[in-house]
Amino acid sequence: MAQVIADRRDVDFVLHEQLNAADLSKNEKFAEFNKKTIDMIVTEARSLAVKEFLPINKEGDEIGATFDGGKVAVPESFKKAYDLLREGEWTAMTEDPEYGGQGMPQVVSRAANDYFQGANYAFMLYAGLTHGAGRLVEVFGTQEQKETYLKKLYTGEWSGTMLLTEAEAGSDVGALTTTAVKNPDGTYSISGSKIFISGGEHDMTENIIHPVLARIEGAPPGTRGISLFLVPKYRVNADGSLGDFNDVVCTGIEEKMGIHGSSTCSLTLGGKGKCIGTLLGQENKGMSAMFVMMNEARLLVGMQAFGCATASYMSALNYAKERIQGRPLTAGKDASVGGVPIIRHPDVRRQLMNMKVMVEGMRSLHYYVGYCQDMAVLAGTEEEKEKYEGLVDILTPIAKGYGTDKAFEVCSHGVQVYGGYGYTKEYPVEQYLRDCRITMIYEGTNGIQAMDLFGRKMTMKKGKLVMDLFGEIMKTVNAAKAIDSLKDAAEKVEASLNKLGEAARHLGKTAMENVDLAFAYAYPLMEVTGDVVMGWMLLWRAVIAAQKLEAKPKDAAFYQGQIKSVEFFVNVFLPVALGKVNSMLATNGAAVEIEDASFGG
Amino acid sequence: MAQVIADRRDVDFVLHEQLNAADLSKNEKFAEFNKKTIDMIVTEARSLAVKEFLPINKEGDEIGATFDGGKVAVPESFKKAYDLLREGEWTAMTEDPEYGGQGMPQVVSRAANDYFQGANYAFMLYAGLTHGAGRLVEVFGTQEQKETYLKKLYTGEWSGTMLLTEAEAGSDVGALTTTAVKNPDGTYSISGSKIFISGGEHDMTENIIHPVLARIEGAPPGTRGISLFLVPKYRVNADGSLGDFNDVVCTGIEEKMGIHGSSTCSLTLGGKGKCIGTLLGQENKGMSAMFVMMNEARLLVGMQAFGCATASYMSALNYAKERIQGRPLTAGKDASVGGVPIIRHPDVRRQLMNMKVMVEGMRSLHYYVGYCQDMAVLAGTEEEKEKYEGLVDILTPIAKGYGTDKAFEVCSHGVQVYGGYGYTKEYPVEQYLRDCRITMIYEGTNGIQAMDLFGRKMTMKKGKLVMDLFGEIMKTVNAAKAIDSLKDAAEKVEASLNKLGEAARHLGKTAMENVDLAFAYAYPLMEVTGDVVMGWMLLWRAVIAAQKLEAKPKDAAFYQGQIKSVEFFVNVFLPVALGKVNSMLATNGAAVEIEDASFGG
Repeated sequence: MAQVIADRRDVDFVLHEQLNAADLSKNEKFAEFNKKTIDMIVTEARSLAVKEFLPINKEGDEIGATFDGGKVAVPESFKKAYDLLREGEWTAMTEDPEYGGQGMPQVVSRAANDYFQGANYAFMLYAGLTHGAGRLVEVFGTQEQKETYLKKLYTGEWSGTMLLTEAEAGSDVGALTTTAVKNPDGTYSISGSKIFISGGEHDMTENIIHPVLARIEGAPPGTRGISLFLVPKYRVNADGSLGDFNDVVCTGIEEKMGIHGSSTCSLTLGGKGKCIGTLLGQENKGMSAMFVMMNEARLLVGMQAFGCATASYMSALNYAKERIQGRPLTAGKDASVGGVPIIRHPDVRRQLMNMKVMVEGMRSLHYYVGYCQDMAVLAGTEEEKEKYEGLVDILTPIAKGYGTDKAFEVCSHGVQVYGGYGYTKEYPVEQYLRDCRITMIYEGTNGIQAMDLFGRKMTMKKGKLVMDLFGEIMKTVNAAKAIDSLKDAAEKVEASLNKLGEAARHLGKTAMENVDLAFAYAYPLMEVTGDVVMGWMLLWRAVIAAQKLEAKPKDAAFYQGQIKSVEFFVNVFLPVALGKVNSMLATNGAAVEIEDASFGG
Repeated sequence: MAQVIADRRDVDFVLHEQLNAADLSKNEKFAEFNKKTIDMIVTEARSLAVKEFLPINKEGDEIGATFDGGKVAVPESFKKAYDLLREGEWTAMTEDPEYGGQGMPQVVSRAANDYFQGANYAFMLYAGLTHGAGRLVEVFGTQEQKETYLKKLYTGEWSGTMLLTEAEAGSDVGALTTTAVKNPDGTYSISGSKIFISGGEHDMTENIIHPVLARIEGAPPGTRGISLFLVPKYRVNADGSLGDFNDVVCTGIEEKMGIHGSSTCSLTLGGKGKCIGTLLGQENKGMSAMFVMMNEARLLVGMQAFGCATASYMSALNYAKERIQGRPLTAGKDASVGGVPIIRHPDVRRQLMNMKVMVEGMRSLHYYVGYCQDMAVLAGTEEEKEKYEGLVDILTPIAKGYGTDKAFEVCSHGVQVYGGYGYTKEYPVEQYLRDCRITMIYEGTNGIQAMDLFGRKMTMKKGKLVMDLFGEIMKTVNAAKAIDSLKDAAEKVEASLNKLGEAARHLGKTAMENVDLAFAYAYPLMEVTGDVVMGWMLLWRAVIAAQKLEAKPKDAAFYQGQIKSVEFFVNVFLPVALGKVNSMLATNGAAVEIEDASFGG
């Protein structure tokens, strides 16, 4: 039977042939996670995703979360799925077993998430936020906060959220107006209104824990005066039982383009009664605390988009193999030749190749970032730790910003391969496209990702992050150059890397003279960085494939597909990337110079 | 007050400064349509669109067309709107007044449609199909058919459709199985099932006229054996009154990603009783007849997508001017500088510029194609007529294929500019994105448009069409070269044009050796052709603007905006187009060579 969501062969390839994830088990921390265990985890995740989460994805879309008098209901089927997610202990795969986690390497959790996100990303959002809230408690919580909340969050008994955005404070978090007033007992009374809160209210768990950004009375304006608080929906008694309602009132949910199964809530805190929170971390250090969570959240958003993309690719591929339509071009006027599956048509193949290279390259990237997180944890030296953390840092805006852009494109190709059927709700691809669209916006719009890459990550530690990244890429390039069949591709990736470096230096210089002008090109810089990283990942895959092919393996088609992917990418995507570099080097100022009035309106 | 849907200044610029539409009134055929009349038409269309059609666009999306027991109901508000459309005689703007048309130049109708499609494209679909059916009757109908149907279609008293697609015959129309059996009285009994029929059933008109593609018993297979029939929902008595139900049964409507207000119907003809049709045109010549309508329909689809794009741009622009969020980059750490409207941020400006150049260039293109249609009608010589018809022919896949792709991108930018709000149904931009997506698929997928451009239009008449197009582009390039401030832009458009020619010749040669390989690059060829055409249109605009600026006009900002548009386009879009040309010239065969099994799945 045709596979859905993700190609298991490709998942295994990245885990075991590209990243050798089982080698992590040589370290005590991950000792349990040998190849057999990893495979079992992936098999179980796939089974759960395919059998339980995927079938209710459409119901999540059609019924969606509903709001009635302050209460939010999720589709009934989500409740059973949530119980299964908890029973399988999938809610905190990578976290400390002491607090209910599974202690799994990040890279392995990526494979599980590949299937989970692809099966039902709206549903998985509840768990993703919960996990993020748990992380905040783990990293910044007092012993008491940990004891009260952590295990319940990591096991999913209670769910969690992330309360940043307000109506007038979105991208500009520093503009928020929610306030915190200290009570004599050391707690804080919180009041304010938050919007766009995923999972802010629902009926799957008995309590919901909200990390809330607010300003303590008298704190400085802007981001320097923001603190982080832990605010439960129901207060928690000393014995862990639920206490009074904490006046976190859901005033409505958003009607959205997609992810209808995920409730996007407006919450008012302390509007009528008293809303009590405890400080999480230090006063006025809320932003940096939140960034710990935000960076992980951004990587998760990349995975959400990737889930839509891989699921869309598998759907479109299966459809293209089955759908008979049109005669082959090569048949010419020979009327004896009948219709063929549409995968035989060159333009459909072009679209499938576009999807294939992006799904493969992106899968490698996401897993690789997870692998770097693991390596940073295992690092024997500060230097090694710093290197891997730096790679995670610089690749985060690529995984999120570039990754979600490209995932949306893949999802659009998916609709197109289906033709008119793709636009109907009879097939899942239009939902993937709609669901995927938000990933380009939330957890920092992709414009903000581009600014983060250019303005922060590329300049951090005097450019060490970018130099480390380039160094890793060159390792692969050099390995590929030694293989005849990959020499051309390797040279093209190298040439693009060099041009990327040139563009980055040029824009860096430009920024010193005209910051607006330089930042008008931050976006294409992110795009080209992403293209180069994709080229790297695909080349890396091809190096392995070329080696494996020497032994004439039974599944040669898979490995040959890897060679074809990099060939396609360097010849179709990289020339366009070079065009973007030329545009960056020209640095035309029209976009910043044009008068507002000249836009019309 | 801020403008919505379209920028009137820009509409007027294209009509009166770029194309001098009023000059058409020098010819007797268009004598009425002087500048004053044109302006009045645009003003009335805008008023109707803004006051009546735009406000019900959301209702059309939310309520949509509904199906119950074979009957389809449109939202109640659509009925009043339809009456207004009819009362204003907007249903056949360009058609013969003898049959209820207004006899308007095509170029003027484009301006009206700019507002109509942008206001409510799902609603306008009913009228668009009706008009198309009328055209078929006008061109191919017998005197009797014309007398029976034409005026009722052109005035919108009855509506029309277009029955091509069947479940197994979409892109491959020749695979259709609907049959026609000749009756003794010369009529035909039709039987078969059709899908994806826009406006196939609804409750706005008392009768619906279906042009139907079917195969007469014994006709050859494939497209050579297809005939066109006129099949009314209710038979028409000799006196014009409605007769019996003609057994055209709606069996359901599609649930879709967008254009919910438009009913997309499955129809069964002659399933239970008798479905009688009359031959329209000649036996077995149905495909060529349908192509007359299809080409016009493709241009209309381009306008539908453009409507979404221009409306999205105006929305995003207005929002960007009003929404305060974030401090300017130039403020650095100066805390005294507060938030600014987001239009002040370079990355938002970059997005708005992307939208601006596409909306402007595309507006010019659509109006220009209309202008060419008018010039073909007015042509004094066969040669002139042939030239203008050729320009329409070669620009049709650009207006449809490239145009809808880019419109979708513009709509996606529109969502992005709004941030999280853009994903909600509180603002119209997410609907524009959803509605727009179908335009890339129907009336021939964009892949088919690319094949039409490369395989048909570029080779027609030994390449005369493409040479005429290049000749027209060079006229503008040469005019621009004579203006100092545009010399650079002109040279860049010229260089791209030359590279496009090189790529087209190269792919033409490739096709003789390997047709699949060549056609795997038909799509980028269409994209680059589109980019060059956009460059041409923007340069043309800039030439006019540069001339006007010499007189230091009051609205200099508008003209300066034209200079900035071409500057942005040639420096940001054309380098990418050149990258695509390089990719075409390399003509890597990975997409066609890869084994099906290597795609995975």
